[in-house]
Amino acid sequence: MSTFGAVFRVTTFGESHCRGVGCIVDGVPPRMRLCEGDIQGQLSRRRPGQSAMTTARDEKDAVKILSGVEHGWTLGTPVALFVENLDQRPGDYSEMADIPRPSHADFTYQMKYGIRASSGGGRSSARETIGRVAAGAIAEKWLREAFGVEIVAFVSSVGDISLGGDAVEANAKTLTRELVDMSPVRCPNDEISSRMVSLVASVKADNDSIGGVITCVVNNVPCGWGEPCFDRLEASLAHAMLSIPATKGFEIGSGFAGTRMRGSQHNDMFTAAPAPGGSSTLATGTNRSGGVQGGISNGQPIVFRVAFKPPATIGKAQRTATFSGNDVVLEAKGRHDPCVVPRAVPIVEAMTALVLADAAMIQSARLASSSAYPAVGPAKCPQ
Amino acid sequence: MSTFGAVFRVTTFGESHCRGVGCIVDGVPPRMRLCEGDIQGQLSRRRPGQSAMTTARDEKDAVKILSGVEHGWTLGTPVALFVENLDQRPGDYSEMADIPRPSHADFTYQMKYGIRASSGGGRSSARETIGRVAAGAIAEKWLREAFGVEIVAFVSSVGDISLGGDAVEANAKTLTRELVDMSPVRCPNDEISSRMVSLVASVKADNDSIGGVITCVVNNVPCGWGEPCFDRLEASLAHAMLSIPATKGFEIGSGFAGTRMRGSQHNDMFTAAPAPGGSSTLATGTNRSGGVQGGISNGQPIVFRVAFKPPATIGKAQRTATFSGNDVVLEAKGRHDPCVVPRAVPIVEAMTALVLADAAMIQSARLASSSAYPAVGPAKCPQ
Amino acid sequence: MSTFGAVFRVTTFGESHCRGVGCIVDGVPPRMRLCEGDIQGQLSRRRPGQSAMTTARDEKDAVKILSGVEHGWTLGTPVALFVENLDQRPGDYSEMADIPRPSHADFTYQMKYGIRASSGGGRSSARETIGRVAAGAIAEKWLREAFGVEIVAFVSSVGDISLGGDAVEANAKTLTRELVDMSPVRCPNDEISSRMVSLVASVKADNDSIGGVITCVVNNVPCGWGEPCFDRLEASLAHAMLSIPATKGFEIGSGFAGTRMRGSQHNDMFTAAPAPGGSSTLATGTNRSGGVQGGISNGQPIVFRVAFKPPATIGKAQRTATFSGNDVVLEAKGRHDPCVVPRAVPIVEAMTALVLADAAMIQSARLASSSAYPAVGPAKCPQ
Amino acid sequence: MSTFGAVFRVTTFGESHCRGVGCIVDGVPPRMRLCEGDIQGQLSRRRPGQSAMTTARDEKDAVKILSGVEHGWTLGTPVALFVENLDQRPGDYSEMADIPRPSHADFTYQMKYGIRASSGGGRSSARETIGRVAAGAIAEKWLREAFGVEIVAFVSSVGDISLGGDAVEANAKTLTRELVDMSPVRCPNDEISSRMVSLVASVKADNDSIGGVITCVVNNVPCGWGEPCFDRLEASLAHAMLSIPATKGFEIGSGFAGTRMRGSQHNDMFTAAPAPGGSSTLATGTNRSGGVQGGISNGQPIVFRVAFKPPATIGKAQRTATFSGNDVVLEAKGRHDPCVVPRAVPIVEAMTALVLADAAMIQSARLASSSAYPAVGPAKCPQ
Repeated sequence: MSTFGAVFRVTTFGESHCRGVGCIVDGVPPRMRLCEGDIQGQLSRRRPGQSAMTTARDEKDAVKILSGVEHGWTLGTPVALFVENLDQRPGDYSEMADIPRPSHADFTYQMKYGIRASSGGGRSSARETIGRVAAGAIAEKWLREAFGVEIVAFVSSVGDISLGGDAVEANAKTLTRELVDMSPVRCPNDEISSRMVSLVASVKADNDSIGGVITCVVNNVPCGWGEPCFDRLEASLAHAMLSIPATKGFEIGSGFAGTRMRGSQHNDMFTAAPAPGGSSTLATGTNRSGGVQGGISNGQPIVFRVAFKPPATIGKAQRTATFSGNDVVLEAKGRHDPCVVPRAVPIVEAMTALVLADAAMIQSARLASSSAYPAVGPAKCPQ
Repeated sequence: MSTFGAVFRVTTFGESHCRGVGCIVDGVPPRMRLCEGDIQGQLSRRRPGQSAMTTARDEKDAVKILSGVEHGWTLGTPVALFVENLDQRPGDYSEMADIPRPSHADFTYQMKYGIRASSGGGRSSARETIGRVAAGAIAEKWLREAFGVEIVAFVSSVGDISLGGDAVEANAKTLTRELVDMSPVRCPNDEISSRMVSLVASVKADNDSIGGVITCVVNNVPCGWGEPCFDRLEASLAHAMLSIPATKGFEIGSGFAGTRMRGSQHNDMFTAAPAPGGSSTLATGTNRSGGVQGGISNGQPIVFRVAFKPPATIGKAQRTATFSGNDVVLEAKGRHDPCVVPRAVPIVEAMTALVLADAAMIQSARLASSSAYPAVGPAKCPQ
Repeated sequence: MSTFGAVFRVTTFGESHCRGVGCIVDGVPPRMRLCEGDIQGQLSRRRPGQSAMTTARDEKDAVKILSGVEHGWTLGTPVALFVENLDQRPGDYSEMADIPRPSHADFTYQMKYGIRASSGGGRSSARETIGRVAAGAIAEKWLREAFGVEIVAFVSSVGDISLGGDAVEANAKTLTRELVDMSPVRCPNDEISSRMVSLVASVKADNDSIGGVITCVVNNVPCGWGEPCFDRLEASLAHAMLSIPATKGFEIGSGFAGTRMRGSQHNDMFTAAPAPGGSSTLATGTNRSGGVQGGISNGQPIVFRVAFKPPATIGKAQRTATFSGNDVVLEAKGRHDPCVVPRAVPIVEAMTALVLADAAMIQSARLASSSAYPAVGPAKCPQ
Repeated sequence: MSTFGAVFRVTTFGESHCRGVGCIVDGVPPRMRLCEGDIQGQLSRRRPGQSAMTTARDEKDAVKILSGVEHGWTLGTPVALFVENLDQRPGDYSEMADIPRPSHADFTYQMKYGIRASSGGGRSSARETIGRVAAGAIAEKWLREAFGVEIVAFVSSVGDISLGGDAVEANAKTLTRELVDMSPVRCPNDEISSRMVSLVASVKADNDSIGGVITCVVNNVPCGWGEPCFDRLEASLAHAMLSIPATKGFEIGSGFAGTRMRGSQHNDMFTAAPAPGGSSTLATGTNRSGGVQGGISNGQPIVFRVAFKPPATIGKAQRTATFSGNDVVLEAKGRHDPCVVPRAVPIVEAMTALVLADAAMIQSARLASSSAYPAVGPAKCPQ
């Protein structure tokens, strides 16, 4: 349904052409500084119209905090966020009323609900993700302030142009959003970025679309987040990522490539490492685990990838059928993203932040619950 | 945590060497015929010792129904299931008390809880999955009886030996578990299966391990299952799959390969198709969507793949560190699976059944809730 | 937290002096007719300034539907509702910044969150209930249309002036909101109502406040709602009622008086009764069970009572302490309800509707799940 | 359904005549000492056959820990608990197969599920509460060790023999379970206890039954537990209590009597009080709030009362109807409690512990989440 998280919990609402979209964020820590400026940044990164890579619609997407904050401090009560839909009139899409767009949600929404929003994909539209991005901005502000957690996602492939994984891993610690945003496709490698830009331009000229992959790197996650057995950290991340429109896959650490390896090649060996406060812990030289072992964060960077299919709505002619089953040729009008991955970067970051904030809070409860009991067996990890 | 599902809801318990493992299944439909024999089949398929491909431990894994069933009928009350641990003594693992196995959960469990089961991986061990498989057997019995849903998983790759995706899709409708079980590695293709068997044997001889991929195909899922926006069907499936030990990736339909395609190649075009009861609906000729559009099942087969890393516990010598940070060479003793995918097939099927049973029930509530209201717009899908 | 319900699920937000209050209602049945007028009625009944019985603040409380509805039909997607706070400036309460009002939430909010809204009780204020009433209006519209369920609450006592329980039970079936609203204190008995009005007036003249009891009667609930064991219908109702500000007690059917009875006096004997569709079922002549047996509705009217304490904020002088522990005399300024029960009537109705809508949906899933299995044993109740 | 709690979470199973009853407790703090002896005490207090006040059935109710504990320490993983049903044969109840017992759950279970356990009330039987009591024993051990929380419930009335509330409040701090258990009806007042014993004996001689009230007092709960708005502490307690079989009412603090008071009489005035660690906080001289204000614990004792109706199953002849609607006279055979309140005392304590443990954990997460942010406004309560 439309609620995500157990203790840090987000509920979203809104479709393309209603009064607006937004969310309620419950469980926000009290006494945190929060203003609309803290949220607007990620919303603007998600917004269309940022570059030639994205659709030309200009949505202002100015967020309003409706509740939960007073004099710039959070109260610990639900924070409601709202972004008005400036264009509330259905319109551009009227020709498609009888034609379910291939590989879009028109058909399944109609079948599930016996009704659907008359335009724009309704709740399955990218506009629904505004509430997630806004909520995620609060989560990541807290994660940064409380733990130093840094989440950076970027485009690692568009079509078959791909940034090598080795390059990524080598630079995981130095990656920043500023660096990512220097590329119009959000790929932090000049040469690969240029080739991606050309590919997207050529796809757009064809009235076609193209898929891509987003890689997300999270630094400074402490050991211990993630709840076995069903809410392993990678399970929650996979859930979060596959809930983003247009996603078709998720892999963490070695992912599908790891299935072709032997255990002796794949295992991440332990070595002693310094821990905060002058003590020591264990680290792994390699990180094929992607920062998670047994469903629990191990203190290494969390690294995962998300597959996005090519957008379903294209201008190119498609032979399909109407709802009544009649053959038809569909050429979608309107302005559509030829490639969603650049704009999906802040969405991936937001969903990551929501997963981690909730995991952090549950582990906080766990740690507090047994703080009076002495450790049994070896326990070196600083918490 | 250890509960999965909202209306059809499973809670599991148990680690390697306690009294036993099992689960409580809440929300089981009343008046269904159910006996232990209905559950034992899948448990036996999960059991070690079935072939040379798997570990030689002989665990009987006989399930007992503790509650919720009387005279062979479910009562609608929680069904508790229990499988005794015949070997309750920690033992074989004592040498590893001070050495966290690389890429295993020893380190993270110790760090998260400040204690861990003295042997065998505790809750992160494969033995935890018994409760899931038992619960899944109930879910899939109901899905079959109520909707004709058929779930079949199989091994589609071991290391770099892979069954071509095209072959799979072509045969999706005729696949059966009997066919799958004719192969010792559960790959329903004689030639590929033989090559996989040889590879596993050679890996085993090396005291090493190897990863693989399981593909799962679900036929006869009606349109309409899955709850946007956070509980899209693919999100719930991804969550379920990544909660299985040793998984590193999930992809549905075209998956990561789909990211390299253009929209015009990728979109599944609609055509008229017959529907139950003599009416008609829309189908898609291709199924790059994997049976799900906009997070909702579209009536096509659901097809997804799950990546399993090579098992972490290997006999081969590994240079790693003790909990105290001292260098050490570890050679794990005991009997370990060189490749988990053959035994993981029923686990994938079970988790799939748990996701679908819950989605079916929530959609039942949705359908019932609006059954008195006339459809708005086109509505052809039989429900 | 701020979410209530499993399948029909409400999340609220907002405190006294932020931009506004409201809620997201998830799980609303699709294709239901819904407009703001359907919701405004109950909001206006909750609004202050309706009579001399209530505070003189005039809050317009005009609701806006932000999402989930198009052309007057629900889409099955989340319905967000918003009511602007016309007076967003903290003010009247400034003198109380250092003085926690006795028996109010000032102290506990400050202690729990380490911060609190500077005025008006923040989230613990009656204004928070607007979101509940708005959501409840949707729930009860659906319950009425789908099942004929009618929910009517009324004031059954103010201070020690009390409407006899026998009178209530005799008239349970003919009670209407119109009848209730003819009384300025919402007590549907002219003589008792007059006495209550006088009592409230005299309490008000004293700058004091007074408590009361609301009785709620629900007709036409089918057999079978409520989920043993933890979510028995009476447990969910009790949860809902005690979540309303200022409540101190809940009883269903015979309640506390029933504890003084013998089983032979208390038991509700069965008799044959006609059922819809010409068949027959069992009914009970008496209804000391209050419509629920074993946690499940039995087809009789659901009858329960909710205790409201006297409002904590009074103009009368009180000897208490400041946050710093200094003795102080507090005389609260501003306009405060001398008695909340008249205005709390629609809140009780709303929370009742939320409980029942969720229970109805879960039971719908249950019924659908076993519709293919024949009944075992006697089964006469029409469903 | 059969799961209770969000972070400290219990799921129960079992009915009267299946293999056994029990529960899974998820979220148990790791590294806590735990053995079966820690749980058995409360189970034995719940057991029938303890005195002439209760049924003569002798159920041994020996609990087994199935998982989650090793070498006497909790692992942080789910603790499964099991109590075998020694008498697994349906029998004594056969005459009632066609006669739904008045005010029992036979009729509603049959109507809800279309089937029911052939005897003994199935899941609605008192035997279901064993899982709750076992789980509660773990919760209260932790609450005592981590916070010094002490929960003591006792019988405050049987029929119209009642222990005055003033006496209770005066002695709240000195009450112990030992004191309570010196009375065969668990009423800690010799004279009142004797009168209750006589009343129960006379009711039993009449083959009848009688209701009663249990009061529960909780000392040493810190400020800050309870989650506005829907999960206020009193709402969660009310939910928990009304989920116990045979309950009809709940009141906290002044309860229904408080509705007859004026605000100036009812408000609990603040005074300075010493706090742990030499600092100071605010306390209230009176406690009509029952330890909770605005849904949040205020540091005073939590005091509430639960109403239990007379048991439905009585030997006395009752004129009722069969499932088929035929008139019949029912005289229940078998051994039945004439009064459940003495045995229900540990059940009330257990459910209280489950509510508080969950609330404590969520507040722990909240406190940890904002520990880095300085307090805003007055903040004196030690946490």
